[in-house]
Amino acid sequence: MSSIEQFRQSPHKLLVIPGPIEVSDEVLFANAHPSMSHVSPDFIPVLGDCIRMTRQVDSRSANTLPSHISYRTVVDTAKGQPFLIAGSGTLGWDQIAANLVEPGENALVLHSGYFGDSFAECLETYGANVDQLKAEIGAAVSQEAIAEALGKKKYKLLTFTHVDTSTAVLSDAKAIVETVRRVSPETLVALDGVCSVASEEIHMDQWDVDVIITASQKGLGTPPGLSILVASVRAMQVFSSRKSRPTSYYGSWKKWLPVMQAYESGKPSYFATPPVNLIYAFHASLSKITKSSPSLAERYELHRDASRRVKAAAQELGLKQLPLDPAFAANGMTALWYPDGLSAGDILPRLVKKGIVVAGGLHVDVKDKYFRIGHMGITAVEKSRGDVDAVVKALGETLAEAAAEK
Amino acid sequence: MSSIEQFRQSPHKLLVIPGPIEVSDEVLFANAHPSMSHVSPDFIPVLGDCIRMTRQVDSRSANTLPSHISYRTVVDTAKGQPFLIAGSGTLGWDQIAANLVEPGENALVLHSGYFGDSFAECLETYGANVDQLKAEIGAAVSQEAIAEALGKKKYKLLTFTHVDTSTAVLSDAKAIVETVRRVSPETLVALDGVCSVASEEIHMDQWDVDVIITASQKGLGTPPGLSILVASVRAMQVFSSRKSRPTSYYGSWKKWLPVMQAYESGKPSYFATPPVNLIYAFHASLSKITKSSPSLAERYELHRDASRRVKAAAQELGLKQLPLDPAFAANGMTALWYPDGLSAGDILPRLVKKGIVVAGGLHVDVKDKYFRIGHMGITAVEKSRGDVDAVVKALGETLAEAAAEK
Repeated sequence: MSSIEQFRQSPHKLLVIPGPIEVSDEVLFANAHPSMSHVSPDFIPVLGDCIRMTRQVDSRSANTLPSHISYRTVVDTAKGQPFLIAGSGTLGWDQIAANLVEPGENALVLHSGYFGDSFAECLETYGANVDQLKAEIGAAVSQEAIAEALGKKKYKLLTFTHVDTSTAVLSDAKAIVETVRRVSPETLVALDGVCSVASEEIHMDQWDVDVIITASQKGLGTPPGLSILVASVRAMQVFSSRKSRPTSYYGSWKKWLPVMQAYESGKPSYFATPPVNLIYAFHASLSKITKSSPSLAERYELHRDASRRVKAAAQELGLKQLPLDPAFAANGMTALWYPDGLSAGDILPRLVKKGIVVAGGLHVDVKDKYFRIGHMGITAVEKSRGDVDAVVKALGETLAEAAAEK
Repeated sequence: MSSIEQFRQSPHKLLVIPGPIEVSDEVLFANAHPSMSHVSPDFIPVLGDCIRMTRQVDSRSANTLPSHISYRTVVDTAKGQPFLIAGSGTLGWDQIAANLVEPGENALVLHSGYFGDSFAECLETYGANVDQLKAEIGAAVSQEAIAEALGKKKYKLLTFTHVDTSTAVLSDAKAIVETVRRVSPETLVALDGVCSVASEEIHMDQWDVDVIITASQKGLGTPPGLSILVASVRAMQVFSSRKSRPTSYYGSWKKWLPVMQAYESGKPSYFATPPVNLIYAFHASLSKITKSSPSLAERYELHRDASRRVKAAAQELGLKQLPLDPAFAANGMTALWYPDGLSAGDILPRLVKKGIVVAGGLHVDVKDKYFRIGHMGITAVEKSRGDVDAVVKALGETLAEAAAEK
């Protein structure tokens, strides 16, 4: 057999961690594409399409939505410059630190979980002076605190984690950029969207975000191994006027920009070999997300719906969320404290026995006190799979069994 | 269908460029593995095995080879520390530059083609003072030139490209390290094996090489997207005694060493999400290469045999190789000047029409004057595929047609 119609992935446990997520047969089959030259006329338009699909208008939504809201693909930008590079999501931080900040410049990191500390450390590695604004566990940094910090010092860059995978806290991206533009209009705003792109609404142009980083293995429904970044026109101008050279080689936009531009215009170019098979897989997933039914607007609603179902079921079972305010809880994942008297060992192995793989805690301070459920991509969108129902059912049974045994 | 027995990759043109190479059905099927958690008990030993397979003794060869030659897996080391990170081969340069050299230290780059310049630029990006020794096109740097340069200045690091993919020149790794140890014993020696590992013999311990970098998509027969590096005990000591912190974040061994050690000992650890599916694919390919028939020693001989056949056929057709000395021509690829009066447009499209994809030139100075044929992995090893015969036949027909039309 060698056709997508015949291919079915092997039976396996349901993967509902906040990334990697369940991947469709179609995307996995594309990942098994015959080996291809990275400069062949067959492959060039595939990578070119992937770049375009990050930026083109989503024409399906144009007629059905209020005119002030556009749904241009997953990050909703008309002119942003995508960079698709072999690497983990983390490489996006290096790209920002090495291309947009020069040694000695100031950066402000908003901390809503584990990933704030790491982003700060990355920026410092490349010579930035970093201040962090830390929110308590389960909260995002307030607009007042951001305004105050920006008023005190000139920052080249502000970064925030849109959804912190360690806490499931969803930051208010629109409000953050508004605060920045009001108090310090020239400060670049970087949105870490590793755990939000394609599962949370993002309007890069409308909100005036300067850089969005993400990765292939979460809302984008592709195996891990691709760092995806989109830079605004302002960010690219700041980049091209920098005085010192980029402080990374593999992550240098001086190297990658001509490659991205070449492939988008249908020509080959070489800096480092792209992850060819993964690009085929990403193409299959992006095509599905941006060009077929359901529309992107409907996908976001399906994620919100899945999230409501998981969170309502958890509440009914007496489980409390890490996010302190339900308005700032992610739609692509749920983080839940273990109930009193129960711990990881009581819950996670039982779920695995029922064929459900969730994730333990990650935030260093409370690592062993909570667990995380992902509901992104096909798990949220393809209701007929019954993934959310299966998770809710298994969670209920598990808690009952665990309680009975205590 | 969901089993390896049934999976066959789609019909496609024969890919005989010097990487990516043809990938077996087995490896592609592994790349289509159901999505898995990077910290799951099922995945941990898979990554652990990949680390071990880069280092374990190849017991099959032990009895059949002279006792002074060991064939421990692909780089032949007992104690080297592997790093497997999502990225292109280029990321290996960043790792070396950011972890083994401190800003202001001296590095000597041996230049036998395109990749020397790039490695030098990478080292400079991270603050090294770089000198290059350039060989003429088709040659490697002489031992005399190396000894002279090392005698004049103290170098922290010397790098060379084992097989330069742009010229097919194979450098004499053993002789280079001997020269370094004689003249400047403390200088670290880095072997760029992107185009040599698993297609050319390498004996890391016996030759006393300090770092070997490679990538998944050439001799290792896996899709692109994995940066593979092995550091010697000496290199790891130099790393741990560095005074400044690593100058890359994503490529920092301070971050990756605990992760590699954890997975090897069967425990999960997190810095950045590994390319899970590609690790499954790499595991399938490494298992085949290091644990099944033919043995690694036989594989090297099969590569030499494929190389002899392609080079002999080319010579018979009147084509001259780029490498000036046949003793220093790679065994995994062949670089050939176009015959007088013919150019890329006469040769490459005709080969494509016959279903054969070769590569154009890459060395900037002579880019349009030559082409390259890869014969690595299953193309060299699985004779029953008939790949080498197909290439030789198509090349003969193509030259005859092109000549007839002039």
